[in-house]
Amino acid sequence: MSDRIDSLARLIVEFGANVQRGQVVVVGAELGYEDLARAIVAVAYDRGAKFVDVTYYDPYVKHARLSRVADESLEYIPEWFGHRVLELGRERGASVSLTGPTAPNLFDDVDPGRLGRDIYPRVKEWMHVIDDRSVNWCIAPCPTAAWAELVHPDLEPARALELLWDEIARICRLDEPDPPAAWRERSVTLANVAARLTKRRFDALHFEGDGTDLQLGLLPTSQWIGGADVTAEGIEYMPNLPTEEVFTAPDPERAHGTVRSTMPLVVYGATIEGLRLRFDGGRAVEIDADKGAETIRALTTRDANASRLGEVALVDREGRIGTTGTVFYDTLLDENAASHIALGDAYQTSVEEEDRPRVNRSELHLDFMIGGPDVDVTGITRDGERVPVLRDGLWQI
Amino acid sequence: MSDRIDSLARLIVEFGANVQRGQVVVVGAELGYEDLARAIVAVAYDRGAKFVDVTYYDPYVKHARLSRVADESLEYIPEWFGHRVLELGRERGASVSLTGPTAPNLFDDVDPGRLGRDIYPRVKEWMHVIDDRSVNWCIAPCPTAAWAELVHPDLEPARALELLWDEIARICRLDEPDPPAAWRERSVTLANVAARLTKRRFDALHFEGDGTDLQLGLLPTSQWIGGADVTAEGIEYMPNLPTEEVFTAPDPERAHGTVRSTMPLVVYGATIEGLRLRFDGGRAVEIDADKGAETIRALTTRDANASRLGEVALVDREGRIGTTGTVFYDTLLDENAASHIALGDAYQTSVEEEDRPRVNRSELHLDFMIGGPDVDVTGITRDGERVPVLRDGLWQI
Repeated sequence: MSDRIDSLARLIVEFGANVQRGQVVVVGAELGYEDLARAIVAVAYDRGAKFVDVTYYDPYVKHARLSRVADESLEYIPEWFGHRVLELGRERGASVSLTGPTAPNLFDDVDPGRLGRDIYPRVKEWMHVIDDRSVNWCIAPCPTAAWAELVHPDLEPARALELLWDEIARICRLDEPDPPAAWRERSVTLANVAARLTKRRFDALHFEGDGTDLQLGLLPTSQWIGGADVTAEGIEYMPNLPTEEVFTAPDPERAHGTVRSTMPLVVYGATIEGLRLRFDGGRAVEIDADKGAETIRALTTRDANASRLGEVALVDREGRIGTTGTVFYDTLLDENAASHIALGDAYQTSVEEEDRPRVNRSELHLDFMIGGPDVDVTGITRDGERVPVLRDGLWQI
Repeated sequence: MSDRIDSLARLIVEFGANVQRGQVVVVGAELGYEDLARAIVAVAYDRGAKFVDVTYYDPYVKHARLSRVADESLEYIPEWFGHRVLELGRERGASVSLTGPTAPNLFDDVDPGRLGRDIYPRVKEWMHVIDDRSVNWCIAPCPTAAWAELVHPDLEPARALELLWDEIARICRLDEPDPPAAWRERSVTLANVAARLTKRRFDALHFEGDGTDLQLGLLPTSQWIGGADVTAEGIEYMPNLPTEEVFTAPDPERAHGTVRSTMPLVVYGATIEGLRLRFDGGRAVEIDADKGAETIRALTTRDANASRLGEVALVDREGRIGTTGTVFYDTLLDENAASHIALGDAYQTSVEEEDRPRVNRSELHLDFMIGGPDVDVTGITRDGERVPVLRDGLWQI
């Protein structure tokens, strides 16, 4: 196990975040991630990091807050959380965030409307430093016993954890002789798909099938992005490990139709199943679900644009996550298994300067999966021509 | 156990820090303190706290840093640690810090000179908000299995933890029918002793016995402080639970003689045994120890005044800690078992306005125990008269 932890830590620090000599590094962990977090710290210092600041999020502390805090304080978090992120940006620091459920179902007894109003530990200032391109960052999974039990409930705990590690090692390409090289190759493939999509300058995308019939406008300069990214100062990094998507910012004024989430999702502790939304004029005007609708409704009323779209991402079926057939209940993995859209904030870098005032701005960024082999994606040109983009989960362009 | 945790949490939040409705609260914890930290969060929210921010310090992360970081970065910590503390002060927030060893001997393999140069998790800005009196704060112990094993190595683990809880419950007066009332009574006693000492306006103190012969100058307005304190806005709080001491700021220019620590101490992970110092002209000019001398030497060269004294505290033998006969390897408890002095920063409030420029200022504040039944403490008046203060651990004034 210790070897796997070290391999994952090295991939995250040396290749994912690509920590540079002299950088300050923040590591966002949860209680339960100690072994991987400490391995990351060791690798980061060996790379010459100046200081590594690990914060451990405790979901039980959030649970106590949601169960007890006065209603008028639910949206409040102290300013120092944001100042820290902005300071990291000014320092040209690096960031590693680890994901993976540690306390599944902990929030099931919390009022879903309140749950949707407390987005901590999300800190909205992260979007500023991402848009600034001042920080090299990486989000990566951390296998835990609790997560393994959630994903493989029928196995005995040790076996479940072993299987989860197997899956994540494969998904993260740790089974390759040279994992960074394998990622560089995958990154080039994603960048090529993104370039082809950008070149088409579609006016809109149409998602059809499996309960979805949604048309999404794109902006004139919407650029598709996939794989590695680079800071303003030229540090290459891999924002997500794994990553199998290409994405852009849609026109927040033009979304129309109905969409059905193809996978359950866990958002700020709430489990959402069978999510269905109807969009009109870019806005989610109806929100239903088999479970958790009220949390999504509360999230989308956080601010004026939280019910509009900030991202659309396409995922083919050649990635390594979808083929596992496993639902991971973790957005980092599940969103790279299927095409998805996100309510809320857009990545500014996914349009050119002239369209930046038009992309969506919100404190929310909520991804949910809408793609799969039964969902066709079609590009619509400015002349109304329909061009197949994904059919049966395979690229057509 | 859960009842004890809840009682301790209530004492800390409701009486110790005295958290007020609408306050932001920070809780400084270590990995291993989760149960008590979460109980504190629950009580704080029930008191009407607006936000409770728990940080979990991970000693293994510090160990990785000390073992690996470049020498020139050892003293560095990012500014956001200090900014957070200053912001808490501006917000008139509250603070709870928990203590108690969680990973004894972890740092034994680290170069002691390097160990003495990295004072994280100490954040120097705490001294500003303490001197400002802007924050109501409380430092209190958190029993853990690791601590129990350190203190009671001959007992089997469950029994050792039970005994440590018994001791800490008694020391914290949780065995009283009304613990806050018991503390209010003890606080009045300490305040009375402090008032009598202040009234004497001693020019110096003389510690003699058990290898110590140290004369310490006091400042003209040195005021003795004991028990409860109050913020600038009038919130009463108990800075330390337990507290059995009265303290003041000495004249940093006038310490002369030799001093022998009467107890081992653990400082930033280093275990120090048999510490001996010689002072001349206020400065520690010779530092020796059976173990850990190099760490203390490194700490005292941190800045120009780190080798001068910022605090002298007197403890009688009527407190509940000394009578346990237990060495706790935790300064909060051990410093309240015996008279002590501190190298480094002074509490500004322990002198009047006119003497504030004269008290010691440093990034360090390092307490070590020098008192006990065999150490006499004598006050010396401006006329050279010698007045017994402590004999055989009992107040003489």
